[in-house]
Amino acid sequence: MTLPQPRVLAPGDTIGILGGGQLGRMLALAAAKLGLHGHIYAPEPDSPAFDVVRRSTRADYSDEGALDRFARDVDVVTYEFENVPAFAATFLAARVPVLPDPKALAVTQDRFPEKSFVAGLSIPTAQFASVEDFTGLEAAARTLGRPCVLKCRRFGYDGKGQVIIRDGADLAAAWREVGEAPSILETFVPFEREISVIAARSLDGRVECFDVCENEHRNHILKVTRVPARIPPALAGKARAIADKIAVAFDYVGVLAVEMFVVRERGEETVLVNEIAPRVHNSGHWTLDGASVSQFEQHIRAVAGWPLMRPLRHGRIEMTNLIGTEVRDAAKLLIEPGASLHLYGKRSIQPGRKMGHVTRVFREGT
Amino acid sequence: MTLPQPRVLAPGDTIGILGGGQLGRMLALAAAKLGLHGHIYAPEPDSPAFDVVRRSTRADYSDEGALDRFARDVDVVTYEFENVPAFAATFLAARVPVLPDPKALAVTQDRFPEKSFVAGLSIPTAQFASVEDFTGLEAAARTLGRPCVLKCRRFGYDGKGQVIIRDGADLAAAWREVGEAPSILETFVPFEREISVIAARSLDGRVECFDVCENEHRNHILKVTRVPARIPPALAGKARAIADKIAVAFDYVGVLAVEMFVVRERGEETVLVNEIAPRVHNSGHWTLDGASVSQFEQHIRAVAGWPLMRPLRHGRIEMTNLIGTEVRDAAKLLIEPGASLHLYGKRSIQPGRKMGHVTRVFREGT
Repeated sequence: MTLPQPRVLAPGDTIGILGGGQLGRMLALAAAKLGLHGHIYAPEPDSPAFDVVRRSTRADYSDEGALDRFARDVDVVTYEFENVPAFAATFLAARVPVLPDPKALAVTQDRFPEKSFVAGLSIPTAQFASVEDFTGLEAAARTLGRPCVLKCRRFGYDGKGQVIIRDGADLAAAWREVGEAPSILETFVPFEREISVIAARSLDGRVECFDVCENEHRNHILKVTRVPARIPPALAGKARAIADKIAVAFDYVGVLAVEMFVVRERGEETVLVNEIAPRVHNSGHWTLDGASVSQFEQHIRAVAGWPLMRPLRHGRIEMTNLIGTEVRDAAKLLIEPGASLHLYGKRSIQPGRKMGHVTRVFREGT
Repeated sequence: MTLPQPRVLAPGDTIGILGGGQLGRMLALAAAKLGLHGHIYAPEPDSPAFDVVRRSTRADYSDEGALDRFARDVDVVTYEFENVPAFAATFLAARVPVLPDPKALAVTQDRFPEKSFVAGLSIPTAQFASVEDFTGLEAAARTLGRPCVLKCRRFGYDGKGQVIIRDGADLAAAWREVGEAPSILETFVPFEREISVIAARSLDGRVECFDVCENEHRNHILKVTRVPARIPPALAGKARAIADKIAVAFDYVGVLAVEMFVVRERGEETVLVNEIAPRVHNSGHWTLDGASVSQFEQHIRAVAGWPLMRPLRHGRIEMTNLIGTEVRDAAKLLIEPGASLHLYGKRSIQPGRKMGHVTRVFREGT
């Protein structure tokens, strides 16, 4: 069967977006800037993205009737999260172009094919092994040594489903911790810093990367992104080249984020790829205020078949997530000179929930 | 009767916006950035602002039932245009705070009280006289001399309802041109340039002005805004002080624009106020891409009772309107480095219709 092929949209056309969180919301706002309509599809009734579009569908990702009506109303489908159920992606792709291609979802939804894919491109990663059962875990731990990290293969985010196994730690406890589900064991990487590259690739194959971001996590949740990352220009170039290579290998259309560790090997800094997010990414939120084009606009341009922009940065950047009750600091942030506050319109505050972010742009020389 | 008083909104509250054009659309997008809801009220079924909000009301401004339901759904009402019918403004103000205060509408909807208000603040304007009938026009033309400009007192925009009366021109023809309606006659101002100041005033009375804009009109429609205006710093300071004074005199809450002429008098440049727009203004669109806070966000902050930001400019700016068929150049603009394209989502192209704009930011030193 021939699937519907991507085409160049016209202003007034509609971008369908799977997922109604803050990423879908900011994608819809970027579509509006360009005169495109957004149609949000999400199961949660209080999805914050519903607020910024005229047309939305609240339905389960398995609801064929709703998916079919959605497909008829939109000119292209994209998504804000990587755990789009394969059924929905396949169902929609038979009816309307889905970008980025769902094959990027299939690979990145599971840490084992994801890491294998990266390694297959001769891009360095931590050493890793697939773990199917407890015996497999024992064997892998012997091979990789300790400390090592056991991670669920699927549906892990913000550090959920991960456990570090140190010397003397109980393997059986770790196995219970990940729910005795198919997992991946990786060598523990004593990284100097965590960085990410936000790359966009257009329908005609051009790639534009934003400047390399340096990320600071707290409790496994992104807390602060600083741009540019404090790494030598040559290493930044290497990191961008890796993101470029991954985007090309996927024949990717849209924005993706590649998370990497900066490690020191034999006295030299180098990078290891940790994870790929086939979507706009929290570490790219600074581009809304700190660059001449945002990651959200780049993504919309790409999936609309439009050309990308070369991003220019307005200064040195610091983006801080407002997590849980931190959003109560919003009043203070509203009066901080040069701080740009974004609130996601979420109704209830929950621990660990990303409620908004603030971007600080410092002019060069400051 | 005591009218509902403005209060400080909380994230999740709703801003009601009268008017569904591009200004209402960009106001709603700014509200979304801050976690506030927008509810658009407009009579035209294809209002572009409807596309970016979940809740909208399509109804006439005289529809009491619709106005009442709208008032119950929102926490504050604001507007994107100065010709809000007095009935709607009064009806709503009895039910929910309306900001800016409708008295600014009453003054600025009619050029005669508007100019009188400005002159009453000892702010220079062109000489002017009210014209009620043809005899009055003859008398006023004798007093002010020629060339002079006859303008409809109400509902004039983009040069509609204006006629220049030069030496030898037929007064009766000019009178027919303005529809024989109450008008204002002004001395013709041989200006060097047209400028505008976009000022915001908060609920607690603080004023923040953006850098002075220089405006170029074609066929009486704004074509290009350049920032900063090419005027001496002292004159820019004077222009900003005038906007500040007008905002204070109105006890204004929100963004207003003051259009001025730069004229040379006895070898010195000075400014004359031409018009006040009690709303966000086309000459402030550059702030979306060229400043640390946009005029739309400042307006939303003000009407929400929140503090304003001190705006920082990202460089030298040029904002160009895409009028009528010019919007067909959008494809070229999408690939111009550093150009940021905004399309308003209007369905049909019409001559003179503002379809979008493009902002070019040039870094200092370029």
